[in-house]
Amino acid sequence: MNIAVLGTGMVGQALAGRLHELGHSVVVGTRDPQATLARTEPGPMGNPPFSAWHSTHSSVGLATFADAAAGADLVVNASSGAATLDVLGSAGSDNLAGKVLLDIANPLDFSAGFPPTLSVKDTDSLGEQLQRAFPKAKVVKALNTLTASLMVEPKSLGESSTVFVSGEDSAAKAMVVELLESFGHDDVIDLGGIETARGTEMLLPIWLRLMGTLGTGHFNFKVVR
Amino acid sequence: MNIAVLGTGMVGQALAGRLHELGHSVVVGTRDPQATLARTEPGPMGNPPFSAWHSTHSSVGLATFADAAAGADLVVNASSGAATLDVLGSAGSDNLAGKVLLDIANPLDFSAGFPPTLSVKDTDSLGEQLQRAFPKAKVVKALNTLTASLMVEPKSLGESSTVFVSGEDSAAKAMVVELLESFGHDDVIDLGGIETARGTEMLLPIWLRLMGTLGTGHFNFKVVR
Repeated sequence: MNIAVLGTGMVGQALAGRLHELGHSVVVGTRDPQATLARTEPGPMGNPPFSAWHSTHSSVGLATFADAAAGADLVVNASSGAATLDVLGSAGSDNLAGKVLLDIANPLDFSAGFPPTLSVKDTDSLGEQLQRAFPKAKVVKALNTLTASLMVEPKSLGESSTVFVSGEDSAAKAMVVELLESFGHDDVIDLGGIETARGTEMLLPIWLRLMGTLGTGHFNFKVVR
Repeated sequence: MNIAVLGTGMVGQALAGRLHELGHSVVVGTRDPQATLARTEPGPMGNPPFSAWHSTHSSVGLATFADAAAGADLVVNASSGAATLDVLGSAGSDNLAGKVLLDIANPLDFSAGFPPTLSVKDTDSLGEQLQRAFPKAKVVKALNTLTASLMVEPKSLGESSTVFVSGEDSAAKAMVVELLESFGHDDVIDLGGIETARGTEMLLPIWLRLMGTLGTGHFNFKVVR
């Protein structure tokens, strides 16, 4: 499948790398490809700059948000929550129309320090904002409840854990579930429509505090039932 | 230990019954004991009225909020979140001073139907509101992340799952952890100060949607790490 991953940070790198490894044709989208390749400073989490990652993943393409989205069957939003609506706007609604838009971002506001707070209350969600802004895209919210390395390699936890999908379009959710299973996820719960993204986005307050308490982001929730 | 359970609904009944079974001296607190015993209609979840429950648990006392709290070493807030500050006000700050106040309520607003929304954003929590309103009480938030029957009989899930404690006072949290372990909980994570109740209270949006999807509240989160 032709997949665009919008975002060049740790999450975008993890997704793009794994999707390429699984045989997909992957193009990473960014605002300005030349500027992205020219950056040499590490990312905000101390991760290597995109250029270093790209030097070992040269089969993954790099293009503008719009060009990446235009050629894709599936678009992954791996931008930060605060930038998401702007990034998708740059990708262009025509380039998203009719496509599956897998939204893995969280609406986090870092302006007052750590831990960040949510920029929505539980009467809205970033997933719904995206679906409203791009009504012709088939938005599926997933993978926003765990750290990048576990999104794509869940078996590294050594025990089964749960991920969730939310969205209005059943075929789009089925495509995402298949992708999640190809990553190694073996417990995917379909919560229902995109409104249910309120539930998974609101997991972030406890996720962030667990990261502080456990001293690692290498954990995930399992729904025991 | 002398324990007051404030609230006569399903949650209060489950807690009072289990604590009594474990050998504690338990008094349930209510606004008007005579009125509570006289009520014959079922509760909002179709549960039997308190009088029916009490007829098979006659060793559990029933008293006003204030009288129940006055005689207790540990006070459990099992009232609904919307009523909590009023109920604890009736219990009286003098009757709570120096005591452990185990808050298991959630700040849910049912005024717009189901699913309810949270009456706080993630910049506050009911646990913190209680601690601010009753600064001499030792508030510990716990057990608000699972259904009443699993709060007190977690082993009925057949698999280990996680509960959380949040609070400012280490000795108070240790007392609550011991109580949780006596119920059968074997994975208790201390998230830190009462501020971390924001994390567990914000689990409710996904909890409510999981209940809808799974068709049961008989599930719990496990933090796989």
